[in-house]
Amino acid sequence: DPKLKIFALNSNKPLAEKIAAEVGVPLGKSSVKRFSDGEIQINIEESIRGDEIFLIQSTSAPVNDNLMEILIMIDALRRASAKTINVVLPYYGYARQDRKARSREPITAKLVANMLTMAGADRILALDLHAVQIQGFFDIPVDHLMGAPLLADYFLSNDLAENAVVVSPDHGGVTRARKLADFLKTPIAIIDKRRPRPNVSEVMNIIGNVNGKRAIIIDDMIDTAGTITLAAQALKDAGATEVFACCTHPVLSGPAIQRIEDSVIKQMIVTDSIDLPKEKLIDKMVQVSVGPLIGDAIKRIHENKPVSPLFENRFK
Amino acid sequence: DPKLKIFALNSNKPLAEKIAAEVGVPLGKSSVKRFSDGEIQINIEESIRGDEIFLIQSTSAPVNDNLMEILIMIDALRRASAKTINVVLPYYGYARQDRKARSREPITAKLVANMLTMAGADRILALDLHAVQIQGFFDIPVDHLMGAPLLADYFLSNDLAENAVVVSPDHGGVTRARKLADFLKTPIAIIDKRRPRPNVSEVMNIIGNVNGKRAIIIDDMIDTAGTITLAAQALKDAGATEVFACCTHPVLSGPAIQRIEDSVIKQMIVTDSIDLPKEKLIDKMVQVSVGPLIGDAIKRIHENKPVSPLFENRFK
Ligand SMILES: Nc1ncnc2c1ncn2[C@@H]1O[C@H](COP(=O)(O)O)[C@@H](O)[C@H]1O
Ligand SMILES: Nc1ncnc2c1ncn2[C@@H]1O[C@H](COP(=O)(O)O)[C@@H](O)[C@H]1O
Repeated sequence: DPKLKIFALNSNKPLAEKIAAEVGVPLGKSSVKRFSDGEIQINIEESIRGDEIFLIQSTSAPVNDNLMEILIMIDALRRASAKTINVVLPYYGYARQDRKARSREPITAKLVANMLTMAGADRILALDLHAVQIQGFFDIPVDHLMGAPLLADYFLSNDLAENAVVVSPDHGGVTRARKLADFLKTPIAIIDKRRPRPNVSEVMNIIGNVNGKRAIIIDDMIDTAGTITLAAQALKDAGATEVFACCTHPVLSGPAIQRIEDSVIKQMIVTDSIDLPKEKLIDKMVQVSVGPLIGDAIKRIHENKPVSPLFENRFK
Repeated sequence: DPKLKIFALNSNKPLAEKIAAEVGVPLGKSSVKRFSDGEIQINIEESIRGDEIFLIQSTSAPVNDNLMEILIMIDALRRASAKTINVVLPYYGYARQDRKARSREPITAKLVANMLTMAGADRILALDLHAVQIQGFFDIPVDHLMGAPLLADYFLSNDLAENAVVVSPDHGGVTRARKLADFLKTPIAIIDKRRPRPNVSEVMNIIGNVNGKRAIIIDDMIDTAGTITLAAQALKDAGATEVFACCTHPVLSGPAIQRIEDSVIKQMIVTDSIDLPKEKLIDKMVQVSVGPLIGDAIKRIHENKPVSPLFENRFK
């Protein structure tokens, strides 16, 4: 039987530690440093010949460095005769560049998929891909986990599901909102952004009833937090008693933290798919760990068992 | 006939301008920016359907960002129906990771070659690759230019070749030193670094006569400048009247500039294969442009003429 080994790169060591603890193995010995000129230097410090490797890395900012770390590590693992190389991507960077929205645009999410495969990945384990179609960008197996049950668990354990309504901040996110609402046994509402005329600012129209209810906005990622904070205000204006927001991936770039701080959002629940520095963990922010979720999936892959059902069942 | 178009990315715009001027075309219209979270956003702002594209980018620091810019641009160009995509790499980053020097090391120079090919490059135009074997990492055509004639031209035009000796700073660089010496019609010498016993510091032994001569050290790249500044001192100690240094690629990371400033090196001649910020252009530093060299090569590729001979002939 090939030995299961978990290696962490630099983007999210705290999560990698949690995953390794769940699986019950120590993290593999390796060092990922920089040469003086900034080039990545990788040393694998134990034999991995014939082993089944799981490589943990989020391609969050600095996205290009984090991506290159994976590719170079895959190259080193392959040349050191690893049996299989499973790449665990708690956050998949460049996922929003998944189509040509305008002429002559790249499809970088596909480029990244090709790069991972070409470097030698045998399998991908991902979490809440921005578009589920990204699974099809790969010709190797992709296991796709969902953060919604974990977020649902938080709302249920803190008695926040009662008299609540789950809100999708846009049309694209309705399926995700429906899923969370099923777990919480609440209705849903949708924010219907429209620009009445060109050069007139957008109107946030709310489809569904939020009056007198606790609104829980869900998105897959929150980046600059522009949409979500405006949506929160619109929900308040429509009579919501309080507004919670949640997402799997706390990208939180640029003005995000300030906007959330200044907004009517009471609490924001995120996962640790992206490691957050202390200054982003403001009082309103609650981080729940996907470590057990991913650790369990790794054990199931190692044992050749199906990955997804467990987490669907956990909340049924 | 396909139209020749030159596009520049962000690492070395001044050189791209010089190349475009030599070729006699304006730079193609494109914008390469960052989204709020640091992901690269590329827009090609003119039709390139059926065109022959030359893409200018040095993968100098920040190497991973500069590399990703190329890959994403290639992806965009290919999806926009470019006829051929020629990648011009005045400096090829990760070239020193060209073999497994120790167990379980990656061969990142090969990984980079695979990435460029996979993304859709049809041809590579490179300048003084750290190891000529990197040409063989590609299965697409590679044209390989040399900076030595250009550096020779500087020494000849400034009457510095007389009573000079060209010095290789290590055994690996003797062929390069021989080439420059041929152009300058001088003898050569070699620095023979040896560690007499373990835990005893290296001795810089000089093979060849430098006493009473102007020593000209040549290397392909100068990174932290440790070796070259020690070599310069050893040459002085051996009786060299003055010491010049030259290289194609001024990587100049970490303590390099301070070391050069503090050293006995009188002047350092480098090319613009890597763009240098003002603070690195100290008085001792002379930068000569590879713009005409690369521009001429591009014209010859466009006209299906052989690339190399011109520059070999220029100095014969
Ligand atoms: N890192 C990014 N930050 C902001 N916008 C992006 C980013 N990457 C891609 N986009 C744009 O976001 C749009 C896709 O987002 P979405 O409609 O949510 O799938 C496309 O028009 C992309 O050009
Ligand atoms: N960016 C870098 N900076 C310093 N050393 C490097 C770098 N990349 C690779 N190396 C090391 O340099 C050695 C190769 O250099 P060389 O012997 O000059 O070809 C190898 O042992 C590499 O591990």
